[in-house]
Amino acid sequence: MGPEQGCCGGGLRLDPAVREDARRRLLSVRGHVEGILRMLEDESVYCPDVLKQVKAVHGALDKVGAMVLRSHLLRHVVTAVERGDEDRIVSELLELLKYR
Amino acid sequence: MGPEQGCCGGGLRLDPAVREDARRRLLSVRGHVEGILRMLEDESVYCPDVLKQVKAVHGALDKVGAMVLRSHLLRHVVTAVERGDEDRIVSELLELLKYR
Amino acid sequence: MGPEQGCCGGGLRLDPAVREDARRRLLSVRGHVEGILRMLEDESVYCPDVLKQVKAVHGALDKVGAMVLRSHLLRHVVTAVERGDEDRIVSELLELLKYR
Amino acid sequence: MGPEQGCCGGGLRLDPAVREDARRRLLSVRGHVEGILRMLEDESVYCPDVLKQVKAVHGALDKVGAMVLRSHLLRHVVTAVERGDEDRIVSELLELLKYR
Repeated sequence: MGPEQGCCGGGLRLDPAVREDARRRLLSVRGHVEGILRMLEDESVYCPDVLKQVKAVHGALDKVGAMVLRSHLLRHVVTAVERGDEDRIVSELLELLKYR
Repeated sequence: MGPEQGCCGGGLRLDPAVREDARRRLLSVRGHVEGILRMLEDESVYCPDVLKQVKAVHGALDKVGAMVLRSHLLRHVVTAVERGDEDRIVSELLELLKYR
Repeated sequence: MGPEQGCCGGGLRLDPAVREDARRRLLSVRGHVEGILRMLEDESVYCPDVLKQVKAVHGALDKVGAMVLRSHLLRHVVTAVERGDEDRIVSELLELLKYR
Repeated sequence: MGPEQGCCGGGLRLDPAVREDARRRLLSVRGHVEGILRMLEDESVYCPDVLKQVKAVHGALDKVGAMVLRSHLLRHVVTAVERGDEDRIVSELLELLKYR
């Protein structure tokens, strides 16, 4: 999985295979959220059951994030010096990693 | 916001107002996920932009979780000794809090 | 492990056994931090090796926190209604849980 | 802050200034842990006060980690393609980032 050889204007684009995989996973995340919405229609729903499902969605989202991050590191970060934008790309990445 | 005075069979139910608030927030989470799905249709999408949106969804989900957790603590955990199920309710809660 | 039957003025105190266990674990955390300090004296130290050790200290600290939290839930939170301080104790707890 | 121009055998070393800064911060972390150990000698210590201090140590450790990570990204990750070890360096990094 080498760095992107941009044929077409040099944008730092998300790898198409990763994009498709992320899309499929997010469809599943959406389905999961809809499942929680249905749980909440039941007026006897118990809090920890909701919390368990919310936690499962966090887990599924984490996988989407990890996948995109991996692709970003492999395609764009490891080649930053070649492009001369290492300060920008590292600052941006640190900002994103900070969040949790 | 006192503890639940179960009139109706004693289930530990999610407070109705919290349930409605969680429902509204999850509808917004679903919309946000659909926004990311649309981003991913764009083949020039840049990884950090996707990561930023994934992070925002995590934040919105965290709020749903915090709200349900708060209600659970106020209605069910603080009254566990009165019901005599403190071991079960604390173990269940610790299991859920472990997740991140 | 029932709730505290305060004999002596009713403070909400950390259980003595938990206190002793926490103390032992923190001595080990301190030893681990000293180990990282020694690593840093080596001028050829490699970043990921430092990060791995920092991560291990986070893990050890998490265990101290989980232990104290478990004891707090079992002794003080589940009995809050009996004491009539449920709002305070839940707010305090949520504030602490927010941090990560 | 350019990439390392290894004069001396090419190890991927932690930047000396970062190493010194990390050392100072870890001395402070150690002092903080010792402060919690002293708190635990007080038999009337209250759980949330311990949890607050544990949380503060996590925060201080996070800063050490962030500093080392920033340096690692700027010196070693952005130059991985030039060295031809991008797969290794990215896998190692993802492993480390996974932890929380």
